[in-house]
Amino acid sequence: MQIVERIAAFRARMKMEAFDVVIVPTADSHASEYLSDHFKTRRWLCGFTGSAGTLVVAENEAALFTDGRYFIQAERQLAGSGVTLMRMGTAGTPTLTEYLLSMVGEGSRIGVDFSVVSEQFAAGLRRDVKKKNAVLCDTGDWFDDLWKDRPALPEGKAFRLDVQYAGRTAAEKLEGVRAAMREAGAQVHVTNVLDDIAWVLNVRGSDVLHTPVVMSYLIVKEDGAEWFVDGNKVDEKLRASLLEDGVCVRGYDEIIPALEAIEAETSVLVDTGKLTAALTAALAQTHLIGRENPILRMKAVKNDVEIENLRKAHVKDGTAVTRLMYWLKTNVGKIPMTESSVSDYLQQLREEQENYVSLSFDTICAYRSNAAMMHYTATPETAAVLEPRDLLLIDSGGQYLEGTTDITRTFALGEVELEQKKHFTAVLCSVINLASAKFLHGMTGIGLDILARGPIWDMGIDYRCGTGHGVGYLLCVHEGPNSFRWQKSAGRGEDTVLDAGMVTTDEPGVYIEGSHGIRTENELVCRKLEENEYGQFMGFETITCAPIDLDAVIVEQMTQKQRTWLNDYHAFVRQKQMPHMQTQEERTWLEHATRPI
Amino acid sequence: MQIVERIAAFRARMKMEAFDVVIVPTADSHASEYLSDHFKTRRWLCGFTGSAGTLVVAENEAALFTDGRYFIQAERQLAGSGVTLMRMGTAGTPTLTEYLLSMVGEGSRIGVDFSVVSEQFAAGLRRDVKKKNAVLCDTGDWFDDLWKDRPALPEGKAFRLDVQYAGRTAAEKLEGVRAAMREAGAQVHVTNVLDDIAWVLNVRGSDVLHTPVVMSYLIVKEDGAEWFVDGNKVDEKLRASLLEDGVCVRGYDEIIPALEAIEAETSVLVDTGKLTAALTAALAQTHLIGRENPILRMKAVKNDVEIENLRKAHVKDGTAVTRLMYWLKTNVGKIPMTESSVSDYLQQLREEQENYVSLSFDTICAYRSNAAMMHYTATPETAAVLEPRDLLLIDSGGQYLEGTTDITRTFALGEVELEQKKHFTAVLCSVINLASAKFLHGMTGIGLDILARGPIWDMGIDYRCGTGHGVGYLLCVHEGPNSFRWQKSAGRGEDTVLDAGMVTTDEPGVYIEGSHGIRTENELVCRKLEENEYGQFMGFETITCAPIDLDAVIVEQMTQKQRTWLNDYHAFVRQKQMPHMQTQEERTWLEHATRPI
Repeated sequence: MQIVERIAAFRARMKMEAFDVVIVPTADSHASEYLSDHFKTRRWLCGFTGSAGTLVVAENEAALFTDGRYFIQAERQLAGSGVTLMRMGTAGTPTLTEYLLSMVGEGSRIGVDFSVVSEQFAAGLRRDVKKKNAVLCDTGDWFDDLWKDRPALPEGKAFRLDVQYAGRTAAEKLEGVRAAMREAGAQVHVTNVLDDIAWVLNVRGSDVLHTPVVMSYLIVKEDGAEWFVDGNKVDEKLRASLLEDGVCVRGYDEIIPALEAIEAETSVLVDTGKLTAALTAALAQTHLIGRENPILRMKAVKNDVEIENLRKAHVKDGTAVTRLMYWLKTNVGKIPMTESSVSDYLQQLREEQENYVSLSFDTICAYRSNAAMMHYTATPETAAVLEPRDLLLIDSGGQYLEGTTDITRTFALGEVELEQKKHFTAVLCSVINLASAKFLHGMTGIGLDILARGPIWDMGIDYRCGTGHGVGYLLCVHEGPNSFRWQKSAGRGEDTVLDAGMVTTDEPGVYIEGSHGIRTENELVCRKLEENEYGQFMGFETITCAPIDLDAVIVEQMTQKQRTWLNDYHAFVRQKQMPHMQTQEERTWLEHATRPI
Repeated sequence: MQIVERIAAFRARMKMEAFDVVIVPTADSHASEYLSDHFKTRRWLCGFTGSAGTLVVAENEAALFTDGRYFIQAERQLAGSGVTLMRMGTAGTPTLTEYLLSMVGEGSRIGVDFSVVSEQFAAGLRRDVKKKNAVLCDTGDWFDDLWKDRPALPEGKAFRLDVQYAGRTAAEKLEGVRAAMREAGAQVHVTNVLDDIAWVLNVRGSDVLHTPVVMSYLIVKEDGAEWFVDGNKVDEKLRASLLEDGVCVRGYDEIIPALEAIEAETSVLVDTGKLTAALTAALAQTHLIGRENPILRMKAVKNDVEIENLRKAHVKDGTAVTRLMYWLKTNVGKIPMTESSVSDYLQQLREEQENYVSLSFDTICAYRSNAAMMHYTATPETAAVLEPRDLLLIDSGGQYLEGTTDITRTFALGEVELEQKKHFTAVLCSVINLASAKFLHGMTGIGLDILARGPIWDMGIDYRCGTGHGVGYLLCVHEGPNSFRWQKSAGRGEDTVLDAGMVTTDEPGVYIEGSHGIRTENELVCRKLEENEYGQFMGFETITCAPIDLDAVIVEQMTQKQRTWLNDYHAFVRQKQMPHMQTQEERTWLEHATRPI
């Protein structure tokens, strides 16, 4: 079935149900960053495969709104579909709202599937279209009918994450949620956010690629909790174990009736930026208290057991990266290597680690100018062949029972131009400046970002993204609310106070189009330092554990303090990784790779 | 008349006018930081002389709310007055609102003089007391009756600041205000803010100590402007000159009738955080558009002429400080010196400078542990005697036709303990880190503060104030909206984007109670650097021009980059100040004081 036919069928359905315009977002029922295939309806309908974009379909026109990362790809993929590309943020392009309002009039019916958009999104849209006396209505999900071979909802089994990994029982965590409920004056909390649910219940699954969550909903009440999940995913042992924590398992489809059954006037705590419009509608009889999901912050602050496990996960993950580095440095130019084959080998090295679960995201392995594209993915067909010269950037991570990792190293495969070494060293200084920050409690990411960005800005260069993001525990590799950013951006967390136990990446970079890309990424755990008359001082512990390539460093470009930090770091890496090196050659090499400078 | 009698007379007036509680704030009719004596009514009534505090008087009790700077002083000064001290921010102390609400009930009449509080303050209070079904009413000004020898309103003459100093004519500036009015959809702008008025009209006066403003109000209309000011302050020449700019002079007392005469439904742009409740009430028939005063930002961005003049002012001001430094270093221990006599001598050196107008604030000259008190003022009776050892902190500034200055230097008068040298050097590194920042346009003070605070926090110490504030041009030494702060604090400007032409101080410090205090303060002009594919890069030019005492510096504690900055800075100081040294001894000394390290 061609794209034009799919859109024609969609329009026929619109006509039948009397909709003038329908919006098809890129979203699932759980406010997820990564969608399982079942929810990739926008992609199926218009053919554009990018990870971000909103499709708007009217009787005689259709448009796809996407951002700068995807202009070239979208233009190619939309050719012949009859869908106009809307290049968001470029001059002359209307916003989604402007475009919508230009098409609707008195009495127009605008549709969207309420089961995949947040109440906040729907409420904003409702207000906007009201200006033209149009109305917003729920379409429901049409794709079960339209999309003949639509992938089913994922069916991965759920499993219990033992308290030796989670640090606290689900019962304890639920008590924390109840404390937040009481503080907000709520008797019930409802959430559809998969990593929040997985964290609070100490369950994991395999419903989303690289993110071990379980498709489900959660209702927490004062005297118990109900987990709405496909019963086939939950075996008897897990069911019994959850019951001990006061959690009863119900069907995934029972969520709407369960919400509708909540007694009228009950106070219900919900995050309307996350809860779907459909679930919110099912709570119409209750008194809604709109707040950030309390689990978001509880989950962001890792407990001592989680931190101790994360240290172990990073040693294991670092072993894979360190052994890859040895192999790369020793064999490049001698045996054939491409970006893809190196990715595969790194995955194999990770898979050898105990308690390995999966990758935590698609590995970015990018050689020379490919590394200047921040979202580059090699395919076996297009992957560049590696030569014994220039820089190779590898951004990768793993999921282990001991936690999630995210690490980037850039390797010199041989001779590297002086300018690239300067850039490499500046990036290293950036990483170190942020990692060695000491600050009073109350500090936010926006106040520290300059420490990392400064050395890059000093060269008249910028990396056009945040400096770092939060990381989950055997959950999402991108986790809120903590982050390092220099500009305010709604909902990106740069205003979040950095608390002890938060884990955030430290990943400045230099990206020179057509030439090279450099990024060095460590993960930082926020820790308490001394408390005195001035307040509680805080700092970071770097838990990522793999060498930073000294072959690309210009030592004179670093201050003595930065060199000392690097030497201490390499001593830590050497101490942790030496026992995991498998040959005398590896050990000799590691000794050299972590030499003091 | 004793304080108790004053309060008794005040209560009699309250009774006569049927008020249950009356609030007496520390404020004038112009939202000023420094009050002229006429407005120091709270001080007269309760005897507390501190610069911040709000008095609340009820029939049987009275309380003064003030902050931590003043607890000791207020306790002493309120003794026997019957006024309870409310230590703001300490455990168990109610807020002003809580205290008020605890005293009032159904039908209570709460009073405040609407001519000295902002509409925002009054509106907040009105909402609060309404919760108790009480009402807020205007008392008017009772102190002309109660305070027999009340100082008159100041009577200083106004004068024109020539365009060679101001850079732009009042007519041009008023066009800018009108552009902002149009953008806001307003036909009229009304302001009571003295430095905004002085700046936009290119007039100065002497109505507030150290701040050359003129007590007045301003109405800007599309086709002209009206300046409400005591006619005796404006001579015929100034009047004629203002007329050329389209500004007509009216009486200070004519403001209320003039506002009442504005046609109904006219759109009027006002800053309700600044405009008094009384003036706002006089605009009741109009349509108010509440915005930040547009002049605030226009004034903050100094034009090229102002910046060129500021450079000259700082050379002159630096000459006074440099010559003082020479004199101090050469003569301490040989001739008698106290904190007061040194302040006086520095004032004398400033007065010798061409186009000197006044000091820009009371000089802080603080020796040894006195310098640990940030708001220390020496009196001739209590001033410490200086000896040829330890540190002396001098924070001072001048008003010149070429602008306002604010500079702090800390001098080693002889031997200084190693720890104090460490602190001195850390403060110097802080000053340099901020001064040498390079950043993309869009950056705010909150994003840069860590550059200065970092080296102090690294020692486990904090200075409990912002790192820097904006500075006026022959106006207020503290000027908004730009500032450097690490924590959010409503209305303190740490979120203001740093634009080219803004002038902000860079003044980190170390304050160790009972031991020593160190501050080094320079002023920074924000300037454009290169613009490229990443955006507009920005940086700072340091315009303060006096040596930083190398005798207290530990060179090894500084990075090479910091040393280079300091050497470049001292070369600039040497070049600018050498021609102003008056003897061969001074010249030889300056050569040494600015030696490369």
